Amino acid sequence: MEDVQSRHDAREIPLEQVGVSELRYPITVLDREADRQQTIATVELSVNLPHHFKGTHMSRFIEVLEAHRGEVTMFTMPALVEDLRERLEAERARVCMRFTYFVERAAPASGARSLLDVEARFIGESGESGDELFELGVRTPVTSLCPCSKAISDYGAHNQRGFVDIACTFTPDAQGERQMIWIEELIEIAERSASAPIYALLKREDERHVTMQAYDNPVFVEDMARAAAVALRADARVASYRISAENDESIHNHKAFARTSWRRP
Amino acid sequence: MEDVQSRHDAREIPLEQVGVSELRYPITVLDREADRQQTIATVELSVNLPHHFKGTHMSRFIEVLEAHRGEVTMFTMPALVEDLRERLEAERARVCMRFTYFVERAAPASGARSLLDVEARFIGESGESGDELFELGVRTPVTSLCPCSKAISDYGAHNQRGFVDIACTFTPDAQGERQMIWIEELIEIAERSASAPIYALLKREDERHVTMQAYDNPVFVEDMARAAAVALRADARVASYRISAENDESIHNHKAFARTSWRRP
Amino acid sequence: MEDVQSRHDAREIPLEQVGVSELRYPITVLDREADRQQTIATVELSVNLPHHFKGTHMSRFIEVLEAHRGEVTMFTMPALVEDLRERLEAERARVCMRFTYFVERAAPASGARSLLDVEARFIGESGESGDELFELGVRTPVTSLCPCSKAISDYGAHNQRGFVDIACTFTPDAQGERQMIWIEELIEIAERSASAPIYALLKREDERHVTMQAYDNPVFVEDMARAAAVALRADARVASYRISAENDESIHNHKAFARTSWRRP
Amino acid sequence: MEDVQSRHDAREIPLEQVGVSELRYPITVLDREADRQQTIATVELSVNLPHHFKGTHMSRFIEVLEAHRGEVTMFTMPALVEDLRERLEAERARVCMRFTYFVERAAPASGARSLLDVEARFIGESGESGDELFELGVRTPVTSLCPCSKAISDYGAHNQRGFVDIACTFTPDAQGERQMIWIEELIEIAERSASAPIYALLKREDERHVTMQAYDNPVFVEDMARAAAVALRADARVASYRISAENDESIHNHKAFARTSWRRP
Repeated sequence: MEDVQSRHDAREIPLEQVGVSELRYPITVLDREADRQQTIATVELSVNLPHHFKGTHMSRFIEVLEAHRGEVTMFTMPALVEDLRERLEAERARVCMRFTYFVERAAPASGARSLLDVEARFIGESGESGDELFELGVRTPVTSLCPCSKAISDYGAHNQRGFVDIACTFTPDAQGERQMIWIEELIEIAERSASAPIYALLKREDERHVTMQAYDNPVFVEDMARAAAVALRADARVASYRISAENDESIHNHKAFARTSWRRP
Repeated sequence: MEDVQSRHDAREIPLEQVGVSELRYPITVLDREADRQQTIATVELSVNLPHHFKGTHMSRFIEVLEAHRGEVTMFTMPALVEDLRERLEAERARVCMRFTYFVERAAPASGARSLLDVEARFIGESGESGDELFELGVRTPVTSLCPCSKAISDYGAHNQRGFVDIACTFTPDAQGERQMIWIEELIEIAERSASAPIYALLKREDERHVTMQAYDNPVFVEDMARAAAVALRADARVASYRISAENDESIHNHKAFARTSWRRP
Repeated sequence: MEDVQSRHDAREIPLEQVGVSELRYPITVLDREADRQQTIATVELSVNLPHHFKGTHMSRFIEVLEAHRGEVTMFTMPALVEDLRERLEAERARVCMRFTYFVERAAPASGARSLLDVEARFIGESGESGDELFELGVRTPVTSLCPCSKAISDYGAHNQRGFVDIACTFTPDAQGERQMIWIEELIEIAERSASAPIYALLKREDERHVTMQAYDNPVFVEDMARAAAVALRADARVASYRISAENDESIHNHKAFARTSWRRP
Repeated sequence: MEDVQSRHDAREIPLEQVGVSELRYPITVLDREADRQQTIATVELSVNLPHHFKGTHMSRFIEVLEAHRGEVTMFTMPALVEDLRERLEAERARVCMRFTYFVERAAPASGARSLLDVEARFIGESGESGDELFELGVRTPVTSLCPCSKAISDYGAHNQRGFVDIACTFTPDAQGERQMIWIEELIEIAERSASAPIYALLKREDERHVTMQAYDNPVFVEDMARAAAVALRADARVASYRISAENDESIHNHKAFARTSWRRP
């Protein structure tokens, strides 16, 4: 059978990314408390395509993914990306996996235990020159209470569900090994930047606690982005970050947002 | 060319609904203030298919829709549905159109004007026996403030964006004509059932107003559903309703909801 | 602290459903090949609320779910629903869990193995009179090729990704025990109703196979619904079904669909 | 009332973007055939926030948008962006509007008329130094037929709905005025890059036409991206482009995609 993809292409248009997306796949990720956590990723795999090839062999993306079925972490990602790059005979390869991640937590007053879900993602890239990238991203739901509404009202203050999305890359340690930051650590930074954390299960005494905690800690969406930025700059393991904070405004039918990024000099 | 759809089907399985969905189409609807409002509908058109026909002629759905291009109201919907039924040689036909609808409003203190968007829908049905149905649905965003959180906390109360979705059918008037209820009327019922309305534009004096208005009017999601139900039962034009109230909880990462339906005896 | 939810409500509006929705939760389900499969569900839990109570204790939904953390099947679902009903002091309770489910399969010519993802769901209901319901639903992606396009064209035929969604309830066996149908069985019925199955990984010889298989088995969306209906009627374990077949038409920017339902007499 | 937003912030974290998003708003855009077209935009408005200000006055975004209610084009966008920049006292401002746009077209054999919907977007940016940007983006649905499947099969070829997304900026003309490219022109480039265009309404003779047209013009997702690239490079009005082509694969449950970008030297 003819290999149509390998035909010569004369248009001289290189393609930065060719691949597959919106592929669902079960993966196992590292869990600070439980060692391992099984979840389901939405996967995007791609390589660059030099201008003289007509097409990529798309089935090879799935073959490489199948060959690496199992644990996906910042330590296993480089091998997966490198295998993609070699198997597809490309100069650069990229993997992005988005997945739901659960952390177990105790309610602040009753101690009642429940799970919080965040949306996390790993991005891995690799090029011929040996340069590679690993980025961890976590989108954490939080409660935010408006400082302006509190300051100008005789009582009450509007509040809402917000999200703090943090993506960061890491510096190598003294031995040149890339350092690890847990998903749980980014969740903690996000929650400390907000008015109060969010819980699936709150008994009455807990609801009282978080209601007053939020009222005592009003933050704008700008404050959430900045507080997370301050925490990440202070952590020497962080090489760069991109932060996006947003509020599903309770008094509007739109969102308010703030975004900031930084690279350690 | 062969008419494959008209082939005989021997499996003896009648199909309740055959049609097209997720079709985008520009429509004009009635607007209480501005007479007419242009918007874009997501359309679903269907008919039943008797067991002896292999297939429906799907292109005829679009032909009928094109022939009726223009105004879609509770008064024009019956003719569209009836044309579908006849053109597709069916016993029953059904049309559902979902669209964004805007109302202009003044902020409560400053009077600053802005637009509020709601999601509205028309459903029309028609059968051989002359029975027909027209249902109007409106999903209105609101602010809701939790009565429990207010009662048990020394200060503050969690609040969030909520939605009150009302669908209703109408009774005929003394002359046997179906009566009309404006989209704007269902929005007003939804907002009066909540802690406070939502606005796109609020100046500081307005934000103070709605913050305290919400604190003064705490409602559970159950209260929103019931308050809307009481208002609809009291309106003799309403023949039946289905109500769904929901809160995008600010202290949880899930929703709370309440649903109720009723038909006038 | 006051129990605001237990206050008397004088409006005399009963609520059919009050609960929580869009809650994400890890569950384990039965797998015909691998015994167990871990996945993540989007959960809706609800009860009815008699007219004299102001509100439901929403936190109890999560407590019951936490108490049942673990395996969710048609055999464990009744206990979960019954616990909800008792803990919430309600007459009726309902649980709906939607989740991604993977099946491993071999490509038709090369035998290359990969995973197919379907969207499955369990619905459980329970009432005071002991009546209970368990419904299994599976939405399977398939390839469909248009019989009309094939018949009227000199060569080629438009085809596309389609979906066959089957929901069914089950009859008791001779001992009065509810019988089980595997998710895998509903996938097989869906795929046999279509032009060809879908695979994540197809080598060239496999692509040739499914291309010709689809061309040899043209089906309308109506045919997919009917073929699934015939298969389900012939299976004595099925007490009722609801089928929805749809095509993401490759020659249109809308879907075509067919729906049918049935209850064993 | 205190202006909380204007308080000093000592954290020294500048924010690249602060604003509102997911705001729905009616707009009027230019239409090559009908002069004007009314549609509904999903709007994102933002400015940068210098490090010493605590917050942005979010209500001013809506005030500026309300003041410019009406026509939005590449000619009116600069004034809107500049007003945002001034009213918010910022160095940079950015506006993004996404909207559905309809083009009327005749079926290829019968001439039957219907509407095709595409997703379009305008992005405008402005900075203190007078530099400004206007980007037009259009995502056009198309039919794509796989060259590999056609080449290796005895008959048939898998095909599917695909999308060609083109975003471009424009060069000034001899008088230094930015030149215009119609949404309709980007749709035409997208469709000529694919196997066949998509229509809402196709009679049998039209379905025969597009079935054979697609079979006669097989393209990989890579080919669609490259063909659009070649057309855009040949158009002197185009200063830069970003192209993303994708296929909702009919034989897989995932997408295939190709992306490329370019700036005129």
